[in-house]
Amino acid sequence: MRIARFSIDGNVAFGAVEGEGTVESGGLVLDIIKGIPYTDFELSGTKVPLSKVRLLPPVLPNKVVAIGRNYAEHAAELGNEVPDVPVAFFKPTTSVIGSGDAIEYPSFSNELHHEAELAVVIGRMCREVPRERVKDVVFGYTCANDVTARDAQQREKQWARAKGFDTSCPLGPWVETDLDPSDLAIQATVNGEQRQLGRTSDMIRSIEDLVVHITEAMTLLPGDVILTGTPAGVGPLNVGDEVAVTIEGIGTLTNKVIKRG
Amino acid sequence: MRIARFSIDGNVAFGAVEGEGTVESGGLVLDIIKGIPYTDFELSGTKVPLSKVRLLPPVLPNKVVAIGRNYAEHAAELGNEVPDVPVAFFKPTTSVIGSGDAIEYPSFSNELHHEAELAVVIGRMCREVPRERVKDVVFGYTCANDVTARDAQQREKQWARAKGFDTSCPLGPWVETDLDPSDLAIQATVNGEQRQLGRTSDMIRSIEDLVVHITEAMTLLPGDVILTGTPAGVGPLNVGDEVAVTIEGIGTLTNKVIKRG
Repeated sequence: MRIARFSIDGNVAFGAVEGEGTVESGGLVLDIIKGIPYTDFELSGTKVPLSKVRLLPPVLPNKVVAIGRNYAEHAAELGNEVPDVPVAFFKPTTSVIGSGDAIEYPSFSNELHHEAELAVVIGRMCREVPRERVKDVVFGYTCANDVTARDAQQREKQWARAKGFDTSCPLGPWVETDLDPSDLAIQATVNGEQRQLGRTSDMIRSIEDLVVHITEAMTLLPGDVILTGTPAGVGPLNVGDEVAVTIEGIGTLTNKVIKRG
Repeated sequence: MRIARFSIDGNVAFGAVEGEGTVESGGLVLDIIKGIPYTDFELSGTKVPLSKVRLLPPVLPNKVVAIGRNYAEHAAELGNEVPDVPVAFFKPTTSVIGSGDAIEYPSFSNELHHEAELAVVIGRMCREVPRERVKDVVFGYTCANDVTARDAQQREKQWARAKGFDTSCPLGPWVETDLDPSDLAIQATVNGEQRQLGRTSDMIRSIEDLVVHITEAMTLLPGDVILTGTPAGVGPLNVGDEVAVTIEGIGTLTNKVIKRG
């Protein structure tokens, strides 16, 4: 099931996405969900065309834990070695935006980069999750763009600003709950031109590895998000660009880059 | 005014701390606050002895932004240079505990350290705060312990686990709203023995510098917390230790270290 979060006439709701098509092409309908999707919920049967709503970030995370250098070719393209242990950092909730929202070019950077990533959405409060239970705590998957001020990342030893500025965490367009994430094509385009193309099977650490590693240290809450790293091909974003992250079996997350004003 | 957050008989409230004394010595009374302290609020006149309540973390942050290496002597004691730009990282909300709560020794570390820090509590939603407006967005100050798995910090390039594990962010005992933070004694003791002693006047970057730097990139929300770095004297914590952070004009934040179980 594809679960979106959206606003219509000032009300916010979750809905199950039905029909064939894309956000842009139309043809999709939302069946409004009664309740919170992480627990038992019902479809209301009340349907609205997706074209009539504003998509919001599909989850309200308490935290976003992101993983750096989890694809060997990407680590190499920035001159980094594959790390001995996963490189884990946080993106704050104030950085989260949805599909169709604008990425604001930060004032302290002259080198903004896209990073297409598979995002894992957690469905249950959990810590110290054993490998074989990881599937039980995962609610679903969405597309993410770990937008990065590359120059600030290189200047500043920790990445709170470089990867945590407002609008630096587009998520969406919705969460796909029925998906085998082990070998999906993941792609980024800028203004329709392909920039990144990889497969999730090339991750150095699997989703199981990452959930075990993170929850060894900290509790994850329903709606928390893990970004699993980006494949090779990262590159610049400029004001006016439209960046799209597409993951096989999920959909496309699209955002324009604007001047921060 | 000193503002605490606490639970009594299963209810959670904020209260103004009245009287002389400490959490341990007794003599303090809470005047229960009607409403949320970041906005206009009233004292209810209903008073409870502080000894009858459980103190909670005095704020519910959306995010905690922490600053590394902000005292020259501390940077030197770990063999680090004073950074050209502030080293900013996040501690997640799942790491926050209050005074009297237990610090759980993380399973992935054999070298846990205390780091006594002055914490700035934000009172208003803000971004791109000009230096001269910083005082308007600060609600008050509390004590913090930026508990760090030093071995993991050295192994893992980013510090999400080393400084973000559950219970790694003690805050409290309350927020002092009327305080000049520019030259306060800041101290950590372990089992009553002094380990850290410094003055906030030795910060490399001032609170104004840090708020400007952080809000250049991201929005801060009411209740968000900035940890301003630790003075020299950091050192090990072991299971069974009691660590206390005392800041002049605020009070003492006390936590025991227990085995995670």
